[in-house]
Amino acid sequence: MAVRANYKISKIPEMTVRRLSIYTRCLQQLEEDGIKTISSQELAERFNLNSAQVRKDLAYFGEFGVRGIGYYVSGLKAELLKILGLDREWQVVLVGFGNLGSALFHYKGFERQGFRISAIFDDDPAKAGRVADGIAILPLRDLGREAKAKTLQIGIVAVPAEAAQGVTDRLVASGIKAILNFAPVRLKVPKDVRLKNVDLTIELETLSFALAQGAR
Amino acid sequence: MAVRANYKISKIPEMTVRRLSIYTRCLQQLEEDGIKTISSQELAERFNLNSAQVRKDLAYFGEFGVRGIGYYVSGLKAELLKILGLDREWQVVLVGFGNLGSALFHYKGFERQGFRISAIFDDDPAKAGRVADGIAILPLRDLGREAKAKTLQIGIVAVPAEAAQGVTDRLVASGIKAILNFAPVRLKVPKDVRLKNVDLTIELETLSFALAQGAR
Repeated sequence: MAVRANYKISKIPEMTVRRLSIYTRCLQQLEEDGIKTISSQELAERFNLNSAQVRKDLAYFGEFGVRGIGYYVSGLKAELLKILGLDREWQVVLVGFGNLGSALFHYKGFERQGFRISAIFDDDPAKAGRVADGIAILPLRDLGREAKAKTLQIGIVAVPAEAAQGVTDRLVASGIKAILNFAPVRLKVPKDVRLKNVDLTIELETLSFALAQGAR
Repeated sequence: MAVRANYKISKIPEMTVRRLSIYTRCLQQLEEDGIKTISSQELAERFNLNSAQVRKDLAYFGEFGVRGIGYYVSGLKAELLKILGLDREWQVVLVGFGNLGSALFHYKGFERQGFRISAIFDDDPAKAGRVADGIAILPLRDLGREAKAKTLQIGIVAVPAEAAQGVTDRLVASGIKAILNFAPVRLKVPKDVRLKNVDLTIELETLSFALAQGAR
């Protein structure tokens, strides 16, 4: 097993990164089932993946397969977790504690993968000052101070569309370099800040596409 | 402008479908700005897309560009909306009215694109019987009857992981052929049912990947 040191992040397709996330979940399952090694073929069959795709995705990062054996499940999982930055804990700040923000705060998957929501901001006077599971909900003016005190790294924007750019500007000013945006609006960020938009309607559109095509 | 009639849905990458959704949003913006025609080059520059990718994605579905003119904004938008099944209204059933379900119900983007949540189910006695914006929250045992009465087409699963497969089985039994799942669990559906999983953690992982790579 050899991890390449010289791959360029800009050359790696986003879909490959998303699939790495899926592979780690599959490997986790195999580990729980007590399976020590697996070929790309078996891995693909078991989880309904494409084995050529698996090999191609992994090849961006190194040589993980061993001839005649396949992949070592735990070893490969550990490497992928490292590549994905999931071998550490990330301090996440959530802005907006409406229904969506509250749902995201209670979403079990985040903490399980090491994303710890350790600060919450909301300017709604009915919310600011409250405490959610031990985390105080603070007004946005405290963001800069908290970002430093808690070394916040990733911001989640869960405010209405019209408030999203202002919130984003504050996150950027506080030194946050990665933002996950749920507001249905195009945000502007400086070049050194990673922005990922989650557009829930697009997910539904992949379904309406399939249904519409089926009806042709 | 000529739409191909013989494309195979199974040959079309999911990322292409997702990008069609993005293109329609760009074209919508251009229409609002009063722009009648645009080249793939200009479209790409303006919205930070890849012009070769735009042409390749569209080529799956037909010939939409006109030499020396580019694309007719309104015409192309209308074609893409049709391809994506967004030229009609879809009846959506939401199962689970906790924080996430409630956030999805109030999510503005769905209705704007023609996804109408016209039925809500939740077995929590504190919720069943309540009314949300004119829609009664019903117990799951009424799903089959309502699915027929309201010709429900798309199901959204927003229940805890342990309840998700049971809910999905009921949706399938009620004749729903497309399901959007937010529960962090692998669901089983028959071959003729389209299942789309939304894993919110994967979105965060594309960010931790970028941050971890930046720190190498």
